[in-house]
Amino acid sequence: MLMAQYERVRAQTMRLTEALSAEDTMLQSMPDASPAKWHLAHTTWFFETFLLQPYLTGYQPYNEAYQYLFNSYYETVGERHPRPQRGLLSRPSLEEVMDYRKHVDSAMIRLLASSGADIEAAVTIGLHHEMQHQELLQTDIKHALSLNPYALEPDTNSVESSPGSVSTESPEFVHFKGGLSFIGTDAESSFAYDCEQPRHQVFVPEFSLCERLVTNAEWLEFMADDGYKRPTLWLADGWATVQQEGWQAPLYWHREGEQWLTITDRKRVPLDLNAPVCHISYYEADAFARWRGCRLPTEFEWEHAAQSVESGGNFLEQKHSLPQPVPDETQGLKQMFGDAWEWTQSPFIPYPGFKTPEGALAEYNGKFMANQWVLRGGSCATAEQQIRSTYRNFFYAHQRWQFTSLRLAK
Amino acid sequence: MLMAQYERVRAQTMRLTEALSAEDTMLQSMPDASPAKWHLAHTTWFFETFLLQPYLTGYQPYNEAYQYLFNSYYETVGERHPRPQRGLLSRPSLEEVMDYRKHVDSAMIRLLASSGADIEAAVTIGLHHEMQHQELLQTDIKHALSLNPYALEPDTNSVESSPGSVSTESPEFVHFKGGLSFIGTDAESSFAYDCEQPRHQVFVPEFSLCERLVTNAEWLEFMADDGYKRPTLWLADGWATVQQEGWQAPLYWHREGEQWLTITDRKRVPLDLNAPVCHISYYEADAFARWRGCRLPTEFEWEHAAQSVESGGNFLEQKHSLPQPVPDETQGLKQMFGDAWEWTQSPFIPYPGFKTPEGALAEYNGKFMANQWVLRGGSCATAEQQIRSTYRNFFYAHQRWQFTSLRLAK
Amino acid sequence: MLMAQYERVRAQTMRLTEALSAEDTMLQSMPDASPAKWHLAHTTWFFETFLLQPYLTGYQPYNEAYQYLFNSYYETVGERHPRPQRGLLSRPSLEEVMDYRKHVDSAMIRLLASSGADIEAAVTIGLHHEMQHQELLQTDIKHALSLNPYALEPDTNSVESSPGSVSTESPEFVHFKGGLSFIGTDAESSFAYDCEQPRHQVFVPEFSLCERLVTNAEWLEFMADDGYKRPTLWLADGWATVQQEGWQAPLYWHREGEQWLTITDRKRVPLDLNAPVCHISYYEADAFARWRGCRLPTEFEWEHAAQSVESGGNFLEQKHSLPQPVPDETQGLKQMFGDAWEWTQSPFIPYPGFKTPEGALAEYNGKFMANQWVLRGGSCATAEQQIRSTYRNFFYAHQRWQFTSLRLAK
Amino acid sequence: MLMAQYERVRAQTMRLTEALSAEDTMLQSMPDASPAKWHLAHTTWFFETFLLQPYLTGYQPYNEAYQYLFNSYYETVGERHPRPQRGLLSRPSLEEVMDYRKHVDSAMIRLLASSGADIEAAVTIGLHHEMQHQELLQTDIKHALSLNPYALEPDTNSVESSPGSVSTESPEFVHFKGGLSFIGTDAESSFAYDCEQPRHQVFVPEFSLCERLVTNAEWLEFMADDGYKRPTLWLADGWATVQQEGWQAPLYWHREGEQWLTITDRKRVPLDLNAPVCHISYYEADAFARWRGCRLPTEFEWEHAAQSVESGGNFLEQKHSLPQPVPDETQGLKQMFGDAWEWTQSPFIPYPGFKTPEGALAEYNGKFMANQWVLRGGSCATAEQQIRSTYRNFFYAHQRWQFTSLRLAK
Repeated sequence: MLMAQYERVRAQTMRLTEALSAEDTMLQSMPDASPAKWHLAHTTWFFETFLLQPYLTGYQPYNEAYQYLFNSYYETVGERHPRPQRGLLSRPSLEEVMDYRKHVDSAMIRLLASSGADIEAAVTIGLHHEMQHQELLQTDIKHALSLNPYALEPDTNSVESSPGSVSTESPEFVHFKGGLSFIGTDAESSFAYDCEQPRHQVFVPEFSLCERLVTNAEWLEFMADDGYKRPTLWLADGWATVQQEGWQAPLYWHREGEQWLTITDRKRVPLDLNAPVCHISYYEADAFARWRGCRLPTEFEWEHAAQSVESGGNFLEQKHSLPQPVPDETQGLKQMFGDAWEWTQSPFIPYPGFKTPEGALAEYNGKFMANQWVLRGGSCATAEQQIRSTYRNFFYAHQRWQFTSLRLAK
Repeated sequence: MLMAQYERVRAQTMRLTEALSAEDTMLQSMPDASPAKWHLAHTTWFFETFLLQPYLTGYQPYNEAYQYLFNSYYETVGERHPRPQRGLLSRPSLEEVMDYRKHVDSAMIRLLASSGADIEAAVTIGLHHEMQHQELLQTDIKHALSLNPYALEPDTNSVESSPGSVSTESPEFVHFKGGLSFIGTDAESSFAYDCEQPRHQVFVPEFSLCERLVTNAEWLEFMADDGYKRPTLWLADGWATVQQEGWQAPLYWHREGEQWLTITDRKRVPLDLNAPVCHISYYEADAFARWRGCRLPTEFEWEHAAQSVESGGNFLEQKHSLPQPVPDETQGLKQMFGDAWEWTQSPFIPYPGFKTPEGALAEYNGKFMANQWVLRGGSCATAEQQIRSTYRNFFYAHQRWQFTSLRLAK
Repeated sequence: MLMAQYERVRAQTMRLTEALSAEDTMLQSMPDASPAKWHLAHTTWFFETFLLQPYLTGYQPYNEAYQYLFNSYYETVGERHPRPQRGLLSRPSLEEVMDYRKHVDSAMIRLLASSGADIEAAVTIGLHHEMQHQELLQTDIKHALSLNPYALEPDTNSVESSPGSVSTESPEFVHFKGGLSFIGTDAESSFAYDCEQPRHQVFVPEFSLCERLVTNAEWLEFMADDGYKRPTLWLADGWATVQQEGWQAPLYWHREGEQWLTITDRKRVPLDLNAPVCHISYYEADAFARWRGCRLPTEFEWEHAAQSVESGGNFLEQKHSLPQPVPDETQGLKQMFGDAWEWTQSPFIPYPGFKTPEGALAEYNGKFMANQWVLRGGSCATAEQQIRSTYRNFFYAHQRWQFTSLRLAK
Repeated sequence: MLMAQYERVRAQTMRLTEALSAEDTMLQSMPDASPAKWHLAHTTWFFETFLLQPYLTGYQPYNEAYQYLFNSYYETVGERHPRPQRGLLSRPSLEEVMDYRKHVDSAMIRLLASSGADIEAAVTIGLHHEMQHQELLQTDIKHALSLNPYALEPDTNSVESSPGSVSTESPEFVHFKGGLSFIGTDAESSFAYDCEQPRHQVFVPEFSLCERLVTNAEWLEFMADDGYKRPTLWLADGWATVQQEGWQAPLYWHREGEQWLTITDRKRVPLDLNAPVCHISYYEADAFARWRGCRLPTEFEWEHAAQSVESGGNFLEQKHSLPQPVPDETQGLKQMFGDAWEWTQSPFIPYPGFKTPEGALAEYNGKFMANQWVLRGGSCATAEQQIRSTYRNFFYAHQRWQFTSLRLAK
């Protein structure tokens, strides 16, 4: 069963790069992002380094140089190629990287056939790690191609989408009594990252959550009400960023005459006004909430609420490449899983009793526990299997290239 | 009584600048800091803007230009002189600023004599605001003079201090059972800032706090054990900062031969090995704690513990200008108040139910609630009256020019 | 006679700082500039270092620390205080620096009384060095005070100056046949800097020079014709600078309603349309010339032409603090000396056979012979005695805070 | 004959990219450099824009988007893709660019077959333009691959070169009487760029030139004598650059144990001690000359001397990819043409009477006439046909990625 999972996850990665040329897979448009080729190699390096080398008898590294080139940030594993220069790796070629994948895959199949429960934990983390990189691969290539007018131009008119009527009903808020709530997991029976652990009690005061994500139509109202021009709506750091970056709309929004466009993977499409806003920073999410007299939820409120919501949603497997409008008919909380990540008001810090795992994987999440904010729920670029109600994603407050959105709380 | 307090606080500010020349009061050594003259004027502007103009009939602004020059960050009050250029204000002169203080003081005395309870809240916040600036004034001038070899040179040898024997006993940890704890205040009977409110329940798991702050002697052990050279001890952002800034010791430490020196206000003095380490960043505090197999306390743990500690400590009024060694004889938690601010593991975010105050003072703390960390307890540069167990100070993780230290938790 | 000159030059420096407070003399508004106090001390350090220490028996340095603080760039003399931090020298105070001046002056008087021709060269260079700093002192403080709205505001209306009618006559061009011309000097009989030497032959083709400098009225025409918006008028580096800096007019120009204002030392005054434009970069001068179908002169053309012009002009001693309109009545080349420095098309490089002087003063000009442009003729802030037809001033192409203007050539 | 030349030059470009993968041709390692694919497309765009569109009846642009993507800096032709983002053009693919080349080539063949003398000048400039880009293509890809450890590693030991004995004879200096010399060309009979014109007289004083370029062995002596550590050897801007960049040797030098290595196209090779030093900045060339008690030649001295030297040398066609040791047997000036560009002491400014050409090509060289230095003589990466004694190349003083060297003068 682990073998089937291994094959499914690895194949999913291949599918995501199908439409890319060797040249596309080299693109690195900012230090935050990595080339698709690098993602393909790094996820493979992960299995080679943490599974094949320690556990497969007689395994020889495919290429010594890859140890250095495709290490992301594991200080204990050794020196690394500098992150901002990943885009300069024309060599090894995509073809060589694909051979590397095949080589490691066949060795992994052998390992999985012969080994038992002792490697299960490491394989599982490798697969979840690969799923994380699947999402980054999508957002990184979207960012890189967005800067190439030639890559985007030709397909503009492909969207017939009559956006339909824009919903004008105010969304409902769902009320929660709060109280002492169990947050996180002890991950005995199923997979969870170190940072979701340990399960512990948090006192959550009474609160309400909006039934759905904020829509593009609502965001346009914010803009029309000078949302990007009024300093008192913003955190001080946020206002400084707005001015420095010249933000006037979410990332990838582009006005043509009367119409706002955004981009999907390689196409310019009209903004779907009923769909959730996305590609916004924490600062923008926070300012919008303040403008509406609301606030962002804490991660504890979100998790507390999510415990009662069935999983399922608009994930990677649905192959929409943008968040979708909420289906009208349902009651209660919607879009909690999938569609777009939800910024919470909670900084990414350790849970009480947090312990870094032993060994090389100790560096997995702990070292990032400063200056970043927790996002919850997954997006249309997230593998469904990756998400659960305890999952904590994290980014810096100014970052916008992920599928990030918000849900109002009060 | 408010009048007496007004006079006492304002006189304290004057005392702190006594030893400074007009030229000294212009120094601004980094954008984070402000000139002493600017602090003198800005605190005065605060009373003029928020008390005299609205409440004292017939009051005319002392000088229209000051509205612009001495506003710090109140967007609702209007445009401001750019912060990094405060050091360019040779005019108005210190003498004019002193006249401004006198003018406003005498108008305030009149106002205090004639008004009642309606202005008490605003006056009180003005006084607490001034106390905050007293501390910044001290740390800013210390930083500026530290960059002037001529200002520091002459007094080097003034400290006879036989540092005594270095304590080699391991400090004790004080244990707390935790549970649901009331945090913050509703500030009905006594003063507290918006960010300390509202009083609310937090579930605090069992924990222990070290009885005292980490000492300089302990910090030297960390350095001797390559603390500044081992990436695995550091948060990722912290390690990047260490490398970029070339940190190898706390701010103001300077080695001469075998001896480490630090600076007090204008003198180079040998490091007192039994005194608390200070002028460290959050990153350094965090790395030290990890090196010791401990962690930093949360602000809730700190406040829970502080509720049982008597106030009093090494504050501004004691006129030591550095943290002092812990007195040997006492039992239980020591140095909770005064000596040096304690970095906590808690980011500065709003308490549940936080509301920005109405009016211009709405901008007091709320807009800074991102990317900064809570510090607790006050320092040797803090006015004693300013501190209470609910007080939340906040700085960015890389900042070191405040009197910042740490207490271990586990 | 050298003594009289010494006293006159040193007194002139004092006169220039008369109106400044101790606080004003600390201002440093950019790394290119220095505080007035620093100029006062550095010029004194020059006499102490290069005259008193080597030549006055028994002379003790006034203060060892000054060796480090007030060295500008003499690598052979030792380490220096970092230039961008000169504004942080609140200590020594202005008063101490004035005592330093007095101390050195009285020692210099003794030296001058007892010594002979052997020190004449070094004293003379010291005096010329001080005159150079007199000009920098004026332009540096002008820049610093320009950034302080409070320093400039009160005196706005002081200029009644009916600007008179704007001259609409086109200026004449004076023709020169050119040929082999002697350029530079061998400086046997009178003072000249190393960079003006040796005298050598240059072949100068036929050329014409405009009789006067470009006026503010002409500059407004350039602006009205989109001079700052048309890339083809500009050098590539110039256009990049225009865009990066947002230049739309010369430095210190400020529009109020229909009127353009500029500043003199501490006052805002209406632009005198008949006066020469000044505070422009090389890039602006070059673009203007191209717009007019002309070019800038080479330094050889300028010097060749200047050989036939009588000295005298609007210099520091005339106490205008801005360039003045050309007197109508005269014929031939005007404003060659004084009023404003003229950018030439010639980079500052060594003359054939250039030799750096021996000793510490070897560093005087030679090390700056890259990436800067020669300016000729002096300005309203230049001491008259400092200028001669062979004098070469030099600045970077983007710098605007000197009194810089242009004369058209073709 | 023009057609034969066209085919030969275009084929040479293809040969230079033969060994590169599509991924390699995307690399842009710094804003100064461009991807090989971009060079391939831009040179083609040049023919399309300046020949096919105006002269070939009925010609339709191959792709409208290319007008924007492959314009380098021609403001009059319209907007451009930002230079630092050329490396993000994964699309169009290399294959598409190759198709573009073929399309334009076949249209050009048609045009050349049918047109007469009227297009000769523009075709010739297009071919010389392409030869310039051939050199940049080589230096840009060398720089990009130098940053990829994987691209360089495998071929290290390929050089058998017994470096032979290092020549210890001092080179001779060749003396010139100087006098009025004709410089530049009027380009009536053969091709020359605008910046080489017009031919004019310059008075060149007596001088001597070293018979050959400075060698790697001599450069090692400079390093051994602390050449990179002594500020008095350097121009002020040069010393600032040395400190900021941490320069300790020429670009691409790398020490392994006792041996110094450099790189050729894709291989690490031992430094040939008898070969000319290359990949040095103007600052380094100038410092070396000063260290040797010499100076750099002016461009007029160089051209005056070169008039008596036969053309021919180590050019691109010789397929060495590094400068070669001087052949022992010959007398007089050697290596004047080919091997490596020679920094001169002359800034790149217009000749007297310089006129920018009419039309779009007006932007060819004139706009770069500031802040750069003239280099003369061509290099091992220059097409032989491109060079003549009047040819002026130019780069900024800090740039090192071209094949730049120096010849001593005195």
